Amino acid sequence: MADSELRLEITALPSLPEVRPGDDLGEFIARAAPDDLADSHVIAVAHKVVSKAEGRVRVLEQVTPADRARSLAADQDKDPRHMQVILDETQEVLRAEGGVMICVTRNGLVCANAGVDASNAEAGEVILLPVDPDESARRLRARIAELRGVRPAVVVTDSFGRPWRTGQTDVAIGAAGLAPIDDWRGRPDALGRTLRGTAIAVADVVAAAADLARTKDSSQPAVLVRGLGRFVAPADGPGAAALRRAREQDLFR
Amino acid sequence: MADSELRLEITALPSLPEVRPGDDLGEFIARAAPDDLADSHVIAVAHKVVSKAEGRVRVLEQVTPADRARSLAADQDKDPRHMQVILDETQEVLRAEGGVMICVTRNGLVCANAGVDASNAEAGEVILLPVDPDESARRLRARIAELRGVRPAVVVTDSFGRPWRTGQTDVAIGAAGLAPIDDWRGRPDALGRTLRGTAIAVADVVAAAADLARTKDSSQPAVLVRGLGRFVAPADGPGAAALRRAREQDLFR
Repeated sequence: MADSELRLEITALPSLPEVRPGDDLGEFIARAAPDDLADSHVIAVAHKVVSKAEGRVRVLEQVTPADRARSLAADQDKDPRHMQVILDETQEVLRAEGGVMICVTRNGLVCANAGVDASNAEAGEVILLPVDPDESARRLRARIAELRGVRPAVVVTDSFGRPWRTGQTDVAIGAAGLAPIDDWRGRPDALGRTLRGTAIAVADVVAAAADLARTKDSSQPAVLVRGLGRFVAPADGPGAAALRRAREQDLFR
Repeated sequence: MADSELRLEITALPSLPEVRPGDDLGEFIARAAPDDLADSHVIAVAHKVVSKAEGRVRVLEQVTPADRARSLAADQDKDPRHMQVILDETQEVLRAEGGVMICVTRNGLVCANAGVDASNAEAGEVILLPVDPDESARRLRARIAELRGVRPAVVVTDSFGRPWRTGQTDVAIGAAGLAPIDDWRGRPDALGRTLRGTAIAVADVVAAAADLARTKDSSQPAVLVRGLGRFVAPADGPGAAALRRAREQDLFR
């Protein structure tokens, strides 16, 4: 095949205002996005601001931990109220050892602490994941399109750890308009041989890459990715739900 | 903090010649790299060409499968000789179910089939991982520096599946000159709160992102990443070995 002329460009949008429950995050993003915003672009948004705008925040003072939360909190050296919030978001605890809790969230994500986190939260509060991050992505996409007249794809991101490897990478917990997976299975490789088992988790890779365009102490939750038009479609598509491996196909639960 | 002005640009280098054992891959890359190649750049190279240049290829006709390989091959519906090569590269089989084998390789990577793969191999051959991918990255980096007078970082990549999530992402199996991890633990977030547990697996993210700048049927194994100079250093550093989670810190083995 001829050389591809793909060029990816990844830049953070300017700082957004501090986001509070009820804020119109789509408008914040639409205002911050550059003049050349296009249908072919992807905007990756850290879930923290999505969750804040959606009111997915809990004040620890208002949480009463039950026995299970108290007991797990003691084992895990965590605040029992924080533990209660984690359990409220969890459908199954896969592991709880040495201060690390790996949970299956109510919508099927597998991650530490069911995604409940105090970083970038106000003191005494914790931030939850959006109830339905694909729906959050679809709403943001629609709002940006309404305000800007173009319809870039939207990815909602969170930082997940991984078994077997140190460090975290951002993954797509929600997506709208971006093909979550680029499936090459059955297609030929460069030598004309059929590729097996090659399906790139595009939305996760976009989420991860976007995080390199900002620093963790910046207030730049939204990042613009240019050059992935081949994966962007007018329809919102299956979303990041397609990236959750079905339990029966998972060897590590 | 002020807005960052980070801009990532990711482009594949033009096609390289077909790589054969003994070829000077560093020279191929040095020739293909653009005129503005700089110390601050990162070059991500698919391990397939690294392995080929290093002669890490086995001809299945020359492999005699032992009993364990025959038995596993029957269970897994694989060629017994291919299975023997996988076992030769494996220190431990973590799972072998339904045609999927998750192995710990001799140098401690956890991946399907110990990284042994027939895609992009000649018919009747399989490609192995480099014996020491960090050393491969260091050699490539030194050779490129020798020929071009600048010293970009080098990452050697492979596509890995993940528990819990569908699809694959490229990860860094080798690295030279790139900080493998950006550790924010103990540093303040945007609200001045101390960040916990945030350490970005930079080298893995670079590997993953590089794969978006080419198609799987292209012959473009090398990808140039601009804009990550803050993670590039003259010293080769700890390499991708730092991304392998120690067995005793791993809840999923």
